[in-house]
Amino acid sequence: MKYGIALFPSKRIQDFANSYRKRYDSHYALIPPHLTLKEPFEADDQQIKEMVKELRKIAAETDLIPLKVTKFSSFYPASNVIYLKVEPNETLQRLYERLHSGIFADKPEYVFVPHITIGRDLPSAEYADVYGQLQMQKVHFEETVDRFHLLYQLENGSWTVYETFLVGGKEQE
Amino acid sequence: MKYGIALFPSKRIQDFANSYRKRYDSHYALIPPHLTLKEPFEADDQQIKEMVKELRKIAAETDLIPLKVTKFSSFYPASNVIYLKVEPNETLQRLYERLHSGIFADKPEYVFVPHITIGRDLPSAEYADVYGQLQMQKVHFEETVDRFHLLYQLENGSWTVYETFLVGGKEQE
Repeated sequence: MKYGIALFPSKRIQDFANSYRKRYDSHYALIPPHLTLKEPFEADDQQIKEMVKELRKIAAETDLIPLKVTKFSSFYPASNVIYLKVEPNETLQRLYERLHSGIFADKPEYVFVPHITIGRDLPSAEYADVYGQLQMQKVHFEETVDRFHLLYQLENGSWTVYETFLVGGKEQE
Repeated sequence: MKYGIALFPSKRIQDFANSYRKRYDSHYALIPPHLTLKEPFEADDQQIKEMVKELRKIAAETDLIPLKVTKFSSFYPASNVIYLKVEPNETLQRLYERLHSGIFADKPEYVFVPHITIGRDLPSAEYADVYGQLQMQKVHFEETVDRFHLLYQLENGSWTVYETFLVGGKEQE
């Protein structure tokens, strides 16, 4: 089965992101607004059991995650993806690294650019127009996130949450 | 915020349900195929904190949940909803009752009819046609579910998972 690991920002950020995703993101109906911590990967039942154990351990050792959204940005020219930029921080970076090492090790790593996608698959002309407008908008959200999620993909491309992992010592509460 | 409690069946049942929901369920893009354990309810941050604690306790005291899907059925004439019938069982019934008593107590209870909706909001003529066809189909799934989820609703009507609760002593594994 195909799994992925993501973090959902608060409802207010999700609602804000969706107001754009509705028009600009072809994945709008497949998953709520999110920050990808690990790109989709294949795992069988036995592997995922081991991974869940490891994720619990990683979560227990992860602090509350600061989330600061500061502007619209884009991966252009690499891709036409438009996103809400999330300021990198040590907790997020460390979590990302742990999700890409040990049993989670995979392909040569890209630099981690934390982001919440709000647009993709736009034709070039529309992309330029939309991005031009968004760049001028002010965006500022600051919050703390206390959980991340392991999800799996259905045949129609949509994602179902498999399990939640609480960080910042929340499991003990 | 508006919350709900649901159980997701396995991927194979979700894929099966989605093959119908895609055409017949207006909520197809809002939430993966699910069995509702508690209808949407309002709760503030403080209330939900208490409820999460209670849900952990309930989950710890709940056995693995048998899930047996046996046929297509409908709530007609009460509504045009078409669903996959889930055979009632003691574990499911007991869980439902606990999610409707104590701090979860709400309106006068309906009888709990466990189901996975696959069609709704169909015009009467289409409903009759679709339901007529589905009724003749054989359906049989049997599995065990080891978790349920607390979700919250975004402004666009879609649902994001807030937290997973493992049953059957899974937390201790």
